[in-house]
Amino acid sequence: MSQHSAGWTAPASEVLRVTSAGLSGVDPEATPGYQGKKTDGAESLASGLAALGDLQERLFARSAVGEAQASVLLVLQAMDSAGKGGIVRHVVGGVDPQGIELAAFKAPTAEELQHDFLWRIEKRLPAEGKIGVFDRSHYEDVLIGRVRALAPAEEIERRYRAIVDFEKRVADSGTRIIKVMLHISRDEQKQRLMERLERPEKHWKFNPGDTDERLLWDDYMVAYDTVFERTSTDDAPWYVIPANRKWYARLAVQELLLAALEDIDPQWPVADYDVAAEKKRLAAS
Amino acid sequence: MSQHSAGWTAPASEVLRVTSAGLSGVDPEATPGYQGKKTDGAESLASGLAALGDLQERLFARSAVGEAQASVLLVLQAMDSAGKGGIVRHVVGGVDPQGIELAAFKAPTAEELQHDFLWRIEKRLPAEGKIGVFDRSHYEDVLIGRVRALAPAEEIERRYRAIVDFEKRVADSGTRIIKVMLHISRDEQKQRLMERLERPEKHWKFNPGDTDERLLWDDYMVAYDTVFERTSTDDAPWYVIPANRKWYARLAVQELLLAALEDIDPQWPVADYDVAAEKKRLAAS
Repeated sequence: MSQHSAGWTAPASEVLRVTSAGLSGVDPEATPGYQGKKTDGAESLASGLAALGDLQERLFARSAVGEAQASVLLVLQAMDSAGKGGIVRHVVGGVDPQGIELAAFKAPTAEELQHDFLWRIEKRLPAEGKIGVFDRSHYEDVLIGRVRALAPAEEIERRYRAIVDFEKRVADSGTRIIKVMLHISRDEQKQRLMERLERPEKHWKFNPGDTDERLLWDDYMVAYDTVFERTSTDDAPWYVIPANRKWYARLAVQELLLAALEDIDPQWPVADYDVAAEKKRLAAS
Repeated sequence: MSQHSAGWTAPASEVLRVTSAGLSGVDPEATPGYQGKKTDGAESLASGLAALGDLQERLFARSAVGEAQASVLLVLQAMDSAGKGGIVRHVVGGVDPQGIELAAFKAPTAEELQHDFLWRIEKRLPAEGKIGVFDRSHYEDVLIGRVRALAPAEEIERRYRAIVDFEKRVADSGTRIIKVMLHISRDEQKQRLMERLERPEKHWKFNPGDTDERLLWDDYMVAYDTVFERTSTDDAPWYVIPANRKWYARLAVQELLLAALEDIDPQWPVADYDVAAEKKRLAAS
């Protein structure tokens, strides 16, 4: 677990890593590995933000002087309303924007459809020293792609293999990949979508297609389990994060990010110029 | 002034707009238009963040449903160490990352140099509903471009005119342009650069070229004044913000953003679906 992980009884990267039981092994209400309650969680999140900011700045500093060969990529996948937006706002939003590269993948454009599904993904991979965040990702091409049969079965098969190879290359080139599925229950989703319909200032967040997708809930769960089975590797593991409790999901993602950055352990760069000579030159300027 | 502008005695957009006196008319130590002290400023900044977040979300919401025809572009220019990074971190960083498009312009690449200087700028203009932030910009091409004679004088002349036309088009297409020069004194810069040399964890922020640029201080001040004279228009006005006091500069930029967003006055979109029917359909799902 991270060095800043007050309240955690076990490393998040262990207790949240997907098992062969898949989604059926995870209770969306649970708070695995964390012994605190909601108020403790808010405190842990706040103190983690400072630690995350410090680590991110160190990573960024190394890249600024050409010494970073590391970056982090957080992939966020979930059913509608599971809280991706909240993760971006409350976890990623606590970090200096200069260190973040956020990419939100919507339905592919006409131009994107004329390329392999990984073409648009490659272009948005984080640069050295950055924390990349994918709000949806290439996994849509094997999730909605499969559930809605947007591609033939053999093409979906090809994509699982392509993803594993692609992510291996990305990991080998120095990017820590953290793939997160925010797992809410079907009832929780109904409640959250209903809230969007009940509050006029939330109406824009709802569209009738959300209910259409919801009706395919079971198919999506099967598609997710297949994704985990086929693409969770040591290079790019999947984590299933119970997300009925928003505070827990945010804390857990932060914890995974902290652990990845602590593992990189970026050190402040050493000056490649003569500090004493530069002080003199500056003083005289 | 913005509706959230406790402590302001005059609209920031009026008192900070550059005058014909240029930089000589602005004391870098001053806090024009704001009657509070540093501690008040911190409070104002915190309360402004919530207001800014709300306005940004409304703007974003309109774009999400295809109704926004507006965006905001904040252009940040300054001498080294004047606090651009702090603005990005403490003002922009308080807004949901989903609503921000940040572009940091460094020395142009070989590919960029094979195009007009506005080619790379056009590509990074903010989408509808977004707040774009330029950390340096096309103005480098008439600042360092002029001071270092990186282009012939007639090309620099052409660029001023090109910028005015370009920004007019951008403004006409719905983007509020706020151009900010963070103005520090020469002594303040020396002190800040020295601090970077004195603290090992800041060494990476310094490079010997910073002192070289500093030696051209007066030339840069003339180049800035020419920029203001040639390119400050009603479509895209320049603001000179005294920046020796970091807290004031941050508050002032936030105030300019607030005023621009309040002027757009984005309203929550009205649902384009039958809310009652969707509630029923969701309830049955």
